[in-house]
Amino acid sequence: MKPFNLLLALFMLLKGTAFSQSHALVLQTDFGLKDGAVSAMKGVAFGVSPELKIFDLTHEIPAFNIWEAAYRLQQTAAYWPKGTVFVSVVDPGVGSERKSVVLQTKSGHYFVSPDNGTLTLIAESLGIEAVREIDEKRNRLPGSSASYTFHGRDVYAYTGARLAAGVIPFDSVGHRLPDTVLHIPYQQPTFRNNTVYGNIPILDVQYGNAWTNIDEKTLASLHLKFGDKLRIKISKDKMVIFNGVMPYVTTFASVPEGSPLAYQNSLMNLSFAINFGNFAEKHKVASGPEWMVEVTKE
Amino acid sequence: MKPFNLLLALFMLLKGTAFSQSHALVLQTDFGLKDGAVSAMKGVAFGVSPELKIFDLTHEIPAFNIWEAAYRLQQTAAYWPKGTVFVSVVDPGVGSERKSVVLQTKSGHYFVSPDNGTLTLIAESLGIEAVREIDEKRNRLPGSSASYTFHGRDVYAYTGARLAAGVIPFDSVGHRLPDTVLHIPYQQPTFRNNTVYGNIPILDVQYGNAWTNIDEKTLASLHLKFGDKLRIKISKDKMVIFNGVMPYVTTFASVPEGSPLAYQNSLMNLSFAINFGNFAEKHKVASGPEWMVEVTKE
Amino acid sequence: MKPFNLLLALFMLLKGTAFSQSHALVLQTDFGLKDGAVSAMKGVAFGVSPELKIFDLTHEIPAFNIWEAAYRLQQTAAYWPKGTVFVSVVDPGVGSERKSVVLQTKSGHYFVSPDNGTLTLIAESLGIEAVREIDEKRNRLPGSSASYTFHGRDVYAYTGARLAAGVIPFDSVGHRLPDTVLHIPYQQPTFRNNTVYGNIPILDVQYGNAWTNIDEKTLASLHLKFGDKLRIKISKDKMVIFNGVMPYVTTFASVPEGSPLAYQNSLMNLSFAINFGNFAEKHKVASGPEWMVEVTKE
Repeated sequence: MKPFNLLLALFMLLKGTAFSQSHALVLQTDFGLKDGAVSAMKGVAFGVSPELKIFDLTHEIPAFNIWEAAYRLQQTAAYWPKGTVFVSVVDPGVGSERKSVVLQTKSGHYFVSPDNGTLTLIAESLGIEAVREIDEKRNRLPGSSASYTFHGRDVYAYTGARLAAGVIPFDSVGHRLPDTVLHIPYQQPTFRNNTVYGNIPILDVQYGNAWTNIDEKTLASLHLKFGDKLRIKISKDKMVIFNGVMPYVTTFASVPEGSPLAYQNSLMNLSFAINFGNFAEKHKVASGPEWMVEVTKE
Repeated sequence: MKPFNLLLALFMLLKGTAFSQSHALVLQTDFGLKDGAVSAMKGVAFGVSPELKIFDLTHEIPAFNIWEAAYRLQQTAAYWPKGTVFVSVVDPGVGSERKSVVLQTKSGHYFVSPDNGTLTLIAESLGIEAVREIDEKRNRLPGSSASYTFHGRDVYAYTGARLAAGVIPFDSVGHRLPDTVLHIPYQQPTFRNNTVYGNIPILDVQYGNAWTNIDEKTLASLHLKFGDKLRIKISKDKMVIFNGVMPYVTTFASVPEGSPLAYQNSLMNLSFAINFGNFAEKHKVASGPEWMVEVTKE
Repeated sequence: MKPFNLLLALFMLLKGTAFSQSHALVLQTDFGLKDGAVSAMKGVAFGVSPELKIFDLTHEIPAFNIWEAAYRLQQTAAYWPKGTVFVSVVDPGVGSERKSVVLQTKSGHYFVSPDNGTLTLIAESLGIEAVREIDEKRNRLPGSSASYTFHGRDVYAYTGARLAAGVIPFDSVGHRLPDTVLHIPYQQPTFRNNTVYGNIPILDVQYGNAWTNIDEKTLASLHLKFGDKLRIKISKDKMVIFNGVMPYVTTFASVPEGSPLAYQNSLMNLSFAINFGNFAEKHKVASGPEWMVEVTKE
């Protein structure tokens, strides 16, 4: 072999070793960070490959809250590069019949999760390329087979890490399922009779802002200008919880301290807030698939 | 030197630089994450080597709770590869006579901690290979010697990072001590007169489950089948706090919502829970070395 | 080209690829970790360079508390190596006229932040080398220009990541501003008439200790020996909140449980605590630019 070819081979080898594992592994759970569960998951992932880049989405999903897990994936995934592997473990039905799956989206992201509704929103927004059921015979931390309960560590973190590190290709996860995931019903953003309808999927908990799923395009049907007044009706299971008027503005600083405002949040969805205040707390507004909002121009 | 030898030397050099530092550094404290203390520790570690992989176990150990620190190490360490360096800083006696040590376990893990009981459980489960006292003259962040109080940053994080990065070998930590660590007494798992005795070392705080230290082998003395009813007595300092019957099952879904169950947790230890509920809160059960449990077949 | 030169070139190339990006990116916000905002910031940064080392300072700054953001940077930055890029997003005025800037300190650290007072303390302690306004036309996540509100992700995290990864030099941030940042006034540490004056910038929240800004040199004017009694007066907006006597000691263990003490904290500043207790809670002492302390030898 000539020196130059040797060099080339060496270069490829080193590049390969150092850079093939550039896909991030992003973890989400309802475990909290007070105990060692998340760290054990990371230990398992690090054991798969010490070069793996491991990040957190959040571990503060309220216990068993599948809807919020779905929303957090939706809020975040598109900001991570193609190839990123998300592991989400919010699993009240652990041990029951729900399937353990990996969803590959049309955007090229991967989602390792129980198929219990967690994938509702991400499947809609990023599109389903393929769904595979995790074959636990092949994809389980060696030595863990007697454990009945910690799928998050022994199956999900382990499989996610092997996918992200390129140890296994997507095909090796397990057999392919139909191109669908379990879907939680909710009010889609809709325009009808001069009114925009939508859902409050989530609160911006830190500040008490209410975020809707009403996107730019649906809102555009109202032909708003900044400064226009909006009438907002918020209901839960058809009971009206809030009914009031507020201006549609670009920034919090556009209204006095303590005043309500409607604005587009960082996902470009219509949201409600009080400048230097807590809208959700003041008006007892919460979130979930059962919360609906109606918006009309005043 | 021939090109091939040069190449080999280059390869070794690059491999060495890039890959010798694959040991993880895992941090645990009772500092919380609201201030900059943990970040300062990470800055010091990153300053030792920018290639170091730095992770968290938890920083939410309740203030001064040495027992819980001991438990979290025990719960997590075995899931990290051999060579991993744990730094645990729960140190109510900072400035008093407790020694600063590094424990090397028979499993090949390292634990940097004050020798104040934090190492009780990990020393039992992973075995003591050697204990060395940190020589603060050699192993202290340069320029920090006037600081009386932040050992976590200036001594523990710094020493742990240098061990994990391979900057110093274990021998350079300081002189060797006898093969023992300070031990907090508690009820070992035991079978006697058709009864299994054990301790409740910890709660699964996020869900309110009570975890015992009763392992598979000790429990096997009761010759249980899944579905068998168990009588559980839980006492604190010999006062009975809970006395009740529940089935021994494989999954939460095996009992109705709101019903109690006994199951093996992710560490394969007997645990008590309420399906979709909070066992500890409902029955005022807590954890620590002073909590005891008795289990009999009903 | 001779083999040796080729080797040298290859070596430089590989070193360059692998190691030019060794500057840490350290994130601080008031977003909390319950939603996906911080993870979206990290996804954007990871998208800039998968080799980037991303860390957290804290995300638990109380909402809108610019002073505390200033303090946390001050507490932490010096423990990170030269070249580290800090991104701080505590931004009640988002959308108003505050400028988005990058401060380069004389110590060689970088701080990406709204210029709203967040940089008050770090500019004083590390010195201003240069300040540049972020040119959002050049330094904004591609495709994000329609977003009015999430500067933290689209401008600050993106710009910070590109600086840390060496994708852009400091010059490319935007045009240079005068060498100054918005400054929040507070009581500087001062000695006058046998009395030391200072501020309580922060509480050590986890333990309830009160930290002053009185440094070793100012305190030295009192000519203290360990064991000396100090009279401490703490006032808020000139109203006295605490007036008491406590010993000046090296360690918490120097006083009985439940007793107050004065000590030097890990930043070598005078601080007040109760051994195994909560000084701030007991005496209703809080922190901020409006809190003042007077210290005399009893």
